Amino acid sequence: MSARVYLAGPDVFLRDPMAFAARKKELCARHGLTGVFPLDAEIDLAGADAREAGLRISRANEALIRSCQAVIAHVTPFRGPSADVGTAYEMGFARALGLHVFAYTNVQDDFLTRTVAFVGATSRRPDGEVEDGDRMSIESFGLVDNLMLAGAVLDSGGVLASRNAATGERYTELSGFEECVVAAARALG
Amino acid sequence: MSARVYLAGPDVFLRDPMAFAARKKELCARHGLTGVFPLDAEIDLAGADAREAGLRISRANEALIRSCQAVIAHVTPFRGPSADVGTAYEMGFARALGLHVFAYTNVQDDFLTRTVAFVGATSRRPDGEVEDGDRMSIESFGLVDNLMLAGAVLDSGGVLASRNAATGERYTELSGFEECVVAAARALG
Repeated sequence: MSARVYLAGPDVFLRDPMAFAARKKELCARHGLTGVFPLDAEIDLAGADAREAGLRISRANEALIRSCQAVIAHVTPFRGPSADVGTAYEMGFARALGLHVFAYTNVQDDFLTRTVAFVGATSRRPDGEVEDGDRMSIESFGLVDNLMLAGAVLDSGGVLASRNAATGERYTELSGFEECVVAAARALG
Repeated sequence: MSARVYLAGPDVFLRDPMAFAARKKELCARHGLTGVFPLDAEIDLAGADAREAGLRISRANEALIRSCQAVIAHVTPFRGPSADVGTAYEMGFARALGLHVFAYTNVQDDFLTRTVAFVGATSRRPDGEVEDGDRMSIESFGLVDNLMLAGAVLDSGGVLASRNAATGERYTELSGFEECVVAAARALG
């Protein structure tokens, strides 16, 4: 039975997420893995209002992650300098379960560079730390994003793939994803 | 022995995080809980470059979460419409371990309202979904943030406390935090 890999990311917000999921699953299958997309769960939404529907989807996604051996997380910056928070949540969930965590981003600048560009005006504290307009410091560990996300990938034996995609392809470029699939196939094979 | 509660949040980025941590710990102690702050870990950074230092901090934080029975997460929007991704990661980590997850925010607008304000121009898909300028849909479940975060809190038996703090107090207002402490003390007592 081929290993199951949960495909975390903001891909679910694309216009045709199932067509995109099919492309990811095809790349997984080519390398002997079964890709599991968040929207794969059959969820009974009968009688659910919007809030309850959201909660049922959350439960279904957690169950899907529990059924997998690895996660490949799409961490391209999403509405700000960091990854989508749902994806970050799922990385933490997977890491606590002992899964391998792989990640890819289609923006190569490190976290400090991206965040400074995002917040605009910054200042320096006496100790040299850079802070934003809310006087909150900006991490400068040379990592892809917040250190918890980078730690999950590197400490679980995963791989972080980074590319510089054109703006219009930031959420759909898949070469970094394929690099993760190849690494996951090797780790799980 | 009093229950241990991990204090997740962007508080670590404040100018004097240990003074702020002391205020949170005092509120915990008043209700019979032991507050555990991310910076409490003693981390040997000898010989570590910036990247390695970041990874050691990540490992120490994960160990601290494993030592706790609950997490109180500060999910006030951080550099965008969503919570800090490190906090989101830690909520997922805690949830997979079966911990109670509590959360507070100092911005009361729901996720859709905040995100529309953040991205500016939006459009509507034929099915009625609102999408941003990257043509990514905006969740509209009436929840505080991405559905995974809300699910963690509500499904773990936690409480979500929300307030509307003045802009300058968004990251330091603690009445929502105290509401979580009271609820955590009841749940863990």
